[in-house]
Amino acid sequence: MNKTDINVIEEVSLNKPIFIEALPGIGHVGKLAIDHLIDTLDATKFAEVYSPYFPPQVFIDEDGLVENMINEFYYLKEFGEDKKDYIFLVGNSQALSPEGQYILSGDILDFVEKYGIEMAYTLGGLATGQPIENSKIFGAATDIECIETLKEANVEIRSADGGIVGASGLLLGLSKIRGIMGICLMAETPGYFIDAEAAEAILLKLSELLNITVDTEKLDERAEETKMMISKAQQMEQEMMGKNQQNSDDLRYIG
Amino acid sequence: MNKTDINVIEEVSLNKPIFIEALPGIGHVGKLAIDHLIDTLDATKFAEVYSPYFPPQVFIDEDGLVENMINEFYYLKEFGEDKKDYIFLVGNSQALSPEGQYILSGDILDFVEKYGIEMAYTLGGLATGQPIENSKIFGAATDIECIETLKEANVEIRSADGGIVGASGLLLGLSKIRGIMGICLMAETPGYFIDAEAAEAILLKLSELLNITVDTEKLDERAEETKMMISKAQQMEQEMMGKNQQNSDDLRYIG
Amino acid sequence: MNKTDINVIEEVSLNKPIFIEALPGIGHVGKLAIDHLIDTLDATKFAEVYSPYFPPQVFIDEDGLVENMINEFYYLKEFGEDKKDYIFLVGNSQALSPEGQYILSGDILDFVEKYGIEMAYTLGGLATGQPIENSKIFGAATDIECIETLKEANVEIRSADGGIVGASGLLLGLSKIRGIMGICLMAETPGYFIDAEAAEAILLKLSELLNITVDTEKLDERAEETKMMISKAQQMEQEMMGKNQQNSDDLRYIG
Amino acid sequence: MNKTDINVIEEVSLNKPIFIEALPGIGHVGKLAIDHLIDTLDATKFAEVYSPYFPPQVFIDEDGLVENMINEFYYLKEFGEDKKDYIFLVGNSQALSPEGQYILSGDILDFVEKYGIEMAYTLGGLATGQPIENSKIFGAATDIECIETLKEANVEIRSADGGIVGASGLLLGLSKIRGIMGICLMAETPGYFIDAEAAEAILLKLSELLNITVDTEKLDERAEETKMMISKAQQMEQEMMGKNQQNSDDLRYIG
Repeated sequence: MNKTDINVIEEVSLNKPIFIEALPGIGHVGKLAIDHLIDTLDATKFAEVYSPYFPPQVFIDEDGLVENMINEFYYLKEFGEDKKDYIFLVGNSQALSPEGQYILSGDILDFVEKYGIEMAYTLGGLATGQPIENSKIFGAATDIECIETLKEANVEIRSADGGIVGASGLLLGLSKIRGIMGICLMAETPGYFIDAEAAEAILLKLSELLNITVDTEKLDERAEETKMMISKAQQMEQEMMGKNQQNSDDLRYIG
Repeated sequence: MNKTDINVIEEVSLNKPIFIEALPGIGHVGKLAIDHLIDTLDATKFAEVYSPYFPPQVFIDEDGLVENMINEFYYLKEFGEDKKDYIFLVGNSQALSPEGQYILSGDILDFVEKYGIEMAYTLGGLATGQPIENSKIFGAATDIECIETLKEANVEIRSADGGIVGASGLLLGLSKIRGIMGICLMAETPGYFIDAEAAEAILLKLSELLNITVDTEKLDERAEETKMMISKAQQMEQEMMGKNQQNSDDLRYIG
Repeated sequence: MNKTDINVIEEVSLNKPIFIEALPGIGHVGKLAIDHLIDTLDATKFAEVYSPYFPPQVFIDEDGLVENMINEFYYLKEFGEDKKDYIFLVGNSQALSPEGQYILSGDILDFVEKYGIEMAYTLGGLATGQPIENSKIFGAATDIECIETLKEANVEIRSADGGIVGASGLLLGLSKIRGIMGICLMAETPGYFIDAEAAEAILLKLSELLNITVDTEKLDERAEETKMMISKAQQMEQEMMGKNQQNSDDLRYIG
Repeated sequence: MNKTDINVIEEVSLNKPIFIEALPGIGHVGKLAIDHLIDTLDATKFAEVYSPYFPPQVFIDEDGLVENMINEFYYLKEFGEDKKDYIFLVGNSQALSPEGQYILSGDILDFVEKYGIEMAYTLGGLATGQPIENSKIFGAATDIECIETLKEANVEIRSADGGIVGASGLLLGLSKIRGIMGICLMAETPGYFIDAEAAEAILLKLSELLNITVDTEKLDERAEETKMMISKAQQMEQEMMGKNQQNSDDLRYIG
């Protein structure tokens, strides 16, 4: 595999869908929120994305089955008060290298543009590095019109005090170049644990902006599951790092 | 050389061969096991693989001859109780970069698929980080049917407590995408030395699963040889690292 | 996006323009100088450059709007005493990887060569690592004729005591291969802060060489703004690094 | 520039030339030896090699002129007792990344194969890490015939105690795959300074093997010059590293 491989499972026709990205990131806030939304609303998976820029590994699930590093597209048709169509992008990894990030983000936008998306939301966490009481939601956007929408929804506007690294930033930036409007919602989170409260906060604010209703009751449960998977990922990383440092020939060389 | 170069030495026709991968990894368990199997059963090398993603170096053998970084394919025809055909993948290195791992694994599967493989085994070590008495064999697989097979053979099923990094993981994951069934066998090993006992344990379990017989008597001897080559590899790495840090211009710049 | 993307905003016809590069670098001396020149002289942006080798992120401006990593081309027609045409290259980033630097520099030269450039200036800082009173201007060039020009303008010639890393060096070196004459001006700067005085010194020397007049009054103000953006960039970097080290799975893995 | 660029300066017809590589490496032993040989014997440059995998920078010479990172081909016709033709590969850098090493080495062999080379020599240093009295010459080769030649010339055969990293190793290994015979000569050197004595030792042994005569009188002088260029290169590296660590946004980000 030497380029992005998008495997379409179901041919679906969508009407100017809203595109919502929530890949793993700080505090796994976005991922937690959208995984929950997809589950609760029973969205339908219609495409899978594989990339040579993902980490070169597999996970193992509770049954001993291997899971590839993957991004997945789900859709919802005529959902919410406004009867809008939605495309969700979720997954278990982001591209590792800078070029990989740009290549994959470009390929993802090529794909969703074919469905006629006119608006993109990207979700993430905003690391505070310290405990917080209530996760405030911050926003940034591709244009002033979206900024006004955010202000009306009482979203705090981020302002020249940082940036957005990774898919949540790049998908928004590359959308802007293509003339697609976009908003990034960021929930404050300490950043060093899986934050179900921040996920709930961002999900409630997203629901308000989209004029939809999502039951957030079981978010805590999901946070627990995610926590287990993360400790697994950390363990793998440590193993890989540790082995590479101690016996750096292990992975790479003959023995 | 800017892409995978597979040099076919012998055109061979195989009947739904079983594909078995054992490249250098943790404790060199898999490599040790399959190098021994190939040697003992007199399997035939039929193709060589070179990759720009291997470490940029050569080894020197006991006669002063240079050895390229390489992966090699061997076959066995109508072997064992079940008269099955086999393809083995062994070698002295894995790709260094994430992209290299994906590209090479994809090219390897493209190649073996042409021979009609329907089942893949990947072998590796599972680092315990501490001494062990008897190396237990763990397994993961692409599907429930294979998991059942593993359970019947008293293989411990790994479960949501980690993953598989490198070729053993990726070849399994990418096989799953292509609809090829696969099993990864992992032998417990301290991880910080060449582990002939773990190699024997994995070879015995593999033999049971494949319904074949392999003499494991000379595995210790092979472990000794491998140990020497590894200390060579480590020495090279340290030289390379040391030089790069102290006189980082040495390799790269003019002088 | 998997290659350099140059978006031409205005088709413009230029007469043997002088090409001046000033991307972010040591002390942001060159960037500060040319951003000021473009602003003061009201140069016109005519093309934007995006690259998969830029950092995978966006900045956020004071209104909450996202800004892509970008390089930009500006032009001036029949400017100065000599009524010359100019192309300026400015931006908020350079390519991250060595290959990215070569690929992007080559693509940039391909682009400006179409406008018939015959002369290239690249601007940078020369880090002293300690406070300096007056920023002396040093020069290097592609040929002896340019060196003579520099000497006549009392530019100190750099001599076998170092080199030029990044776009300022590479654009000059690759120009030389293409038969385009070029000069690099480097202003002494401590290197650890945004240096408006060094920017003024380089701008005055450049003006003298080009026989143009530029008002340098508001350079201090611009230095302040730049300082804010840099501290933003540093903060992002630290966030990214910190997160990667503490919770290295955050960006890359599932949770 | 996104791939190897070989600029042929003179079309030359050669008769089964011997190919000799000596790029910057440990102790700059090989480079020093062949730069001297080229100079003394007045070999003719006939091609220049540029690569996007070289360090992204230029050097500045004593006149203030920029020098690209480069590899260069020289030839000698009907030279020595045996009236043989020669191609020399020298330069101021090697590729930085593993892939770059493989790609560049492959392109270099493609080029010299067009001239009908049948034999390749690569030269390097063998770091001892401590002072040595007389630099012993070690050898490795692609085949037993060459090993016998080395033994007859009293070259110590390296044996399963290490490998060869970088161009000297890779060009030999890739030659072997192409059916080109090759020898690597390695001179013992402490490794932490420019070693004129090791260069002399390797040059004398090479002369013996090739049945040619080379005056080694001025090697010390050349070592001094090389020493100055290296300290320049180290200084650049340190500047680059230092800046990147202290103000890591300098090179990459806006300011």
